[in-house]
Amino acid sequence: MKYDLAIVGAGPAGLSASVYASRYGIKNVVIGGISGGLTTQTHEIGNWLGEQKIAGWEFAQKATEHAKSYGVEIKNFLADEIKKEGEGNFQIFLSNGEKIQARTILIALGSKHRHLGVKGEKELAGKGVSYCATCDGFFYKEKTVAVVGGNDSAAGAAVFLGNIAKKVFVIYRGEQIRCERFWRESIEKNPKIEVLSNTNIKEIVGKDKLEKLILDNPYQDKEELEVDGVFVEIGSEPNIELLKNLKVELDEDGYIKIGPDGKTSVKGVWAAGDITTGSNKFKQIITAAAEGAVAVADIQGFLKK
Amino acid sequence: MKYDLAIVGAGPAGLSASVYASRYGIKNVVIGGISGGLTTQTHEIGNWLGEQKIAGWEFAQKATEHAKSYGVEIKNFLADEIKKEGEGNFQIFLSNGEKIQARTILIALGSKHRHLGVKGEKELAGKGVSYCATCDGFFYKEKTVAVVGGNDSAAGAAVFLGNIAKKVFVIYRGEQIRCERFWRESIEKNPKIEVLSNTNIKEIVGKDKLEKLILDNPYQDKEELEVDGVFVEIGSEPNIELLKNLKVELDEDGYIKIGPDGKTSVKGVWAAGDITTGSNKFKQIITAAAEGAVAVADIQGFLKK
Repeated sequence: MKYDLAIVGAGPAGLSASVYASRYGIKNVVIGGISGGLTTQTHEIGNWLGEQKIAGWEFAQKATEHAKSYGVEIKNFLADEIKKEGEGNFQIFLSNGEKIQARTILIALGSKHRHLGVKGEKELAGKGVSYCATCDGFFYKEKTVAVVGGNDSAAGAAVFLGNIAKKVFVIYRGEQIRCERFWRESIEKNPKIEVLSNTNIKEIVGKDKLEKLILDNPYQDKEELEVDGVFVEIGSEPNIELLKNLKVELDEDGYIKIGPDGKTSVKGVWAAGDITTGSNKFKQIITAAAEGAVAVADIQGFLKK
Repeated sequence: MKYDLAIVGAGPAGLSASVYASRYGIKNVVIGGISGGLTTQTHEIGNWLGEQKIAGWEFAQKATEHAKSYGVEIKNFLADEIKKEGEGNFQIFLSNGEKIQARTILIALGSKHRHLGVKGEKELAGKGVSYCATCDGFFYKEKTVAVVGGNDSAAGAAVFLGNIAKKVFVIYRGEQIRCERFWRESIEKNPKIEVLSNTNIKEIVGKDKLEKLILDNPYQDKEELEVDGVFVEIGSEPNIELLKNLKVELDEDGYIKIGPDGKTSVKGVWAAGDITTGSNKFKQIITAAAEGAVAVADIQGFLKK
């Protein structure tokens, strides 16, 4: 059997795309390790319009059920390889040995946050360790937080958190954070934000929730720094490992270049969500879901021709 | 008092923008006749990720409550005029005589569907009369529908509905529908779709729901055409009446040109949602909400400088 559309990635972009595709009558299949993607790891979502607070897992479940309500099959396996075998003929090889055939492909594989790789990080993810200040910052009103990193996104996170938290530490391995001047000035102007230079986190400690960080460079003579939350902002990486064969054009950071219609540089291949250059690279659940819808509207026109 | 951001328009784009702005700590106000905008007129929403079915009014209410949960005031008045009085100084005059001052503006005024202007149209809106096949088409599975119009969007709607409905009439005032060739061929190929040329609707009849259309050119010797739904696809118009003074650049169809970051041609003015050229002009609730978020991320950077 051959699908009209294979959606590779089961996060918000892929699931929204599937909902739109099903409603257009496009025979589609969704392929992804975890239905809901990274949202399953988000403690609580507060910026999805209409939901004042929703747990990440609950959102993921609702989105998955929505896509499934049209009878779509979600294959919870990883795609190992995608091959284009001529016009309108794609083959996807899944980790369970299955082979999927499709006329068009939507890549919605998302991105992954770079991790510190220290003890406690994985165990306390969603329990004080966060990779998204915009998503989770609001939960630290009048609390003490740390941001790890020295780039624009770390500095932006620190300034953002400076409006919410009681105290913000910026932990950076180098001598001076390497962000835009106006971010640095914003940090310097805010007495609540303190930069700890030449410092790395050795370990993240906590039982059910984050209690403290262990630093390699003592702060006020102590290696231990008590915080309620730590935001790891050392960059993210699009999940492009799978795209070797497809040769879609990437930007300098490795994100898939897309047009306003979601098209990639390869005919028959669209992309949506965190893996793309779309939405001014503002990586949010709402932008991913919208990009999925926009791409499918274009795919629908393509399939009719 | 001067706001950081005045959001003009209270539909999904404006409300999503307000949620993001509030979470960034941007002092914002929302101005719009009806909180929820056009969604309040949508019978049922089926393509908002995570909600298999939600009534338009319920979505509007949830979105409004979400924005309000951050303490934002929503002023349910129309804006009569927006004036730029130098850098970072906008004035908005409301229909109740109030004057709002703001450093930046987000235009999220949406668009309006062109109406037929015939008897029964207004009364049966949402009760069989629809202006969005993508939104409502799915509710007419195996039923009889009519599409009014002859442009690409009418033809696209007819083809789309041809996958769902039992029978689709295309009612067009001219001799031959003036859409792209491939749409016309798709219509010709589908025996379920029938084009009634040189025909106008004189009246839309029904008590609690649509029962029949009265045509000015008889079909099978009868002026009455029984249908379950009629989709009015004679174009839409961005709500740009208010923008005379601001002089933002528009495209040839009157939509506000925006960059990937939501910026308009006027410094300090962003735009989002149906009124813009964004999201490849795919006018959906999800794309409007995403555009609102993208614009606010950019506004946040601007305000910090």
